[in-house]
Amino acid sequence: MLDEKWIRALHVETMRERELHEEHEPHVLFQASTIAALLDGAYDGDLTFAELAEHGDLGLGTLNGLDGEMIAIDGRFYRAAVDGAIAEVAPGERTPFAVVTEFTPTIEAAIGGPLSHEGLLAAIDGLIPEGASSCAIRLDGRFESVRARSVPRQHPPYRPLTEVVAEQRVFELDDVSGTMLGFRFPSYAEGIEVSGFHLHFVDAERRRGGHVLDSRAAEVTARLDPSNDLHIELPPEVDLASPALAAGTHAAIERVERG
Amino acid sequence: MLDEKWIRALHVETMRERELHEEHEPHVLFQASTIAALLDGAYDGDLTFAELAEHGDLGLGTLNGLDGEMIAIDGRFYRAAVDGAIAEVAPGERTPFAVVTEFTPTIEAAIGGPLSHEGLLAAIDGLIPEGASSCAIRLDGRFESVRARSVPRQHPPYRPLTEVVAEQRVFELDDVSGTMLGFRFPSYAEGIEVSGFHLHFVDAERRRGGHVLDSRAAEVTARLDPSNDLHIELPPEVDLASPALAAGTHAAIERVERG
Repeated sequence: MLDEKWIRALHVETMRERELHEEHEPHVLFQASTIAALLDGAYDGDLTFAELAEHGDLGLGTLNGLDGEMIAIDGRFYRAAVDGAIAEVAPGERTPFAVVTEFTPTIEAAIGGPLSHEGLLAAIDGLIPEGASSCAIRLDGRFESVRARSVPRQHPPYRPLTEVVAEQRVFELDDVSGTMLGFRFPSYAEGIEVSGFHLHFVDAERRRGGHVLDSRAAEVTARLDPSNDLHIELPPEVDLASPALAAGTHAAIERVERG
Repeated sequence: MLDEKWIRALHVETMRERELHEEHEPHVLFQASTIAALLDGAYDGDLTFAELAEHGDLGLGTLNGLDGEMIAIDGRFYRAAVDGAIAEVAPGERTPFAVVTEFTPTIEAAIGGPLSHEGLLAAIDGLIPEGASSCAIRLDGRFESVRARSVPRQHPPYRPLTEVVAEQRVFELDDVSGTMLGFRFPSYAEGIEVSGFHLHFVDAERRRGGHVLDSRAAEVTARLDPSNDLHIELPPEVDLASPALAAGTHAAIERVERG
């Protein structure tokens, strides 16, 4: 399914199998709270972006009050407002959900297009070593289009994320240069994380961005940082105690993240 | 539901709310692999007990080949064989699944009985502060009875845990002094961990023990170490990719852990 010409490996450092299991390795993924807590409407966290920055320079998440989509790149933290407009986040602002890592890619490859979003994800899948459960992803390049969304700031009493996402704004960025970044998490991490791919986008001018729903890549350079090391600051128990609700988590995440 | 006389707090240090969120706090829970990987038959890990000991002195898990139930207490690591007989684990042995912590309890209370297992768990629930998502638990004392199980060592090709558990051996320890220990994890951690209570038992003479299915407490001292900080060494992706299988995880964990 994946054509050879799509991937021209520039430089692929073979990861030593052992490295993935070494302790105190630099590839720790740091996560504030869980996707389940966010689904439940826990939109206010107490971790500042100054604190978050100590744990990583690349990643994604949101801001207190669910005030847009957050993109962390090169140690800078951006918010995509509901219309996709980008602004830098102040260090004193706080987040109810974020995942970051000290991005130190060990795999780099050029991926040529045009390529559907599914094709792009399949290409990345093919580049991630088998022993890696998780992976931080950075894709720099040009996209024929990126379909993204952001969400409007909420005010207490907070409603569940599935309701709020009905108010999401979806926008299309055409012929745009920029960076798509985020993570691939294993399916068993559902509840803790969005399983599979979770990607946000910011354009090269840091003007527009959001949570990626779809894309068509023209030409991108993929940099990948596989990791098996996840550090979570868990939130207090959320109300997913009923089996029916717990069973509904997967469906809810699907609706919210792939909407 | 919970009678006052059941809990006589000897000494309850009020945890500062902030402490739960402070970084680099000592109450990190360290986990090797996930319960989902174990359910899938990943019975061989590469973490030695010497390495595990660096991350904690109290906890539970199993051994490579699913060779019994593991109990970590006071920095010593024990295996309960299929008949419940206890032996110390050699530092070079390895584990496919374990959770440990540097146990530093901040809550201590005497719990008087006789008390059903559900009553005991309710009493512990009542002692754990609201802001704590997870908690390490150590209960020292006398039990009218402890119903426990262990599992026989497996050989490759490994079958799923749900099949293996059909061969579990259940045994009853009557009028026994010892320690029940383990963790309470939040419901949203299902897939990563056994949600709710997960407890193993070892008697005072370090002769008999296993995975706790039921108990009747006579008189115990509970020591609790709440934590919101979970560090997981993730295994490679396991085959839970199909939604049906993922949806079946909860039911499978129920069967296996509450058998």
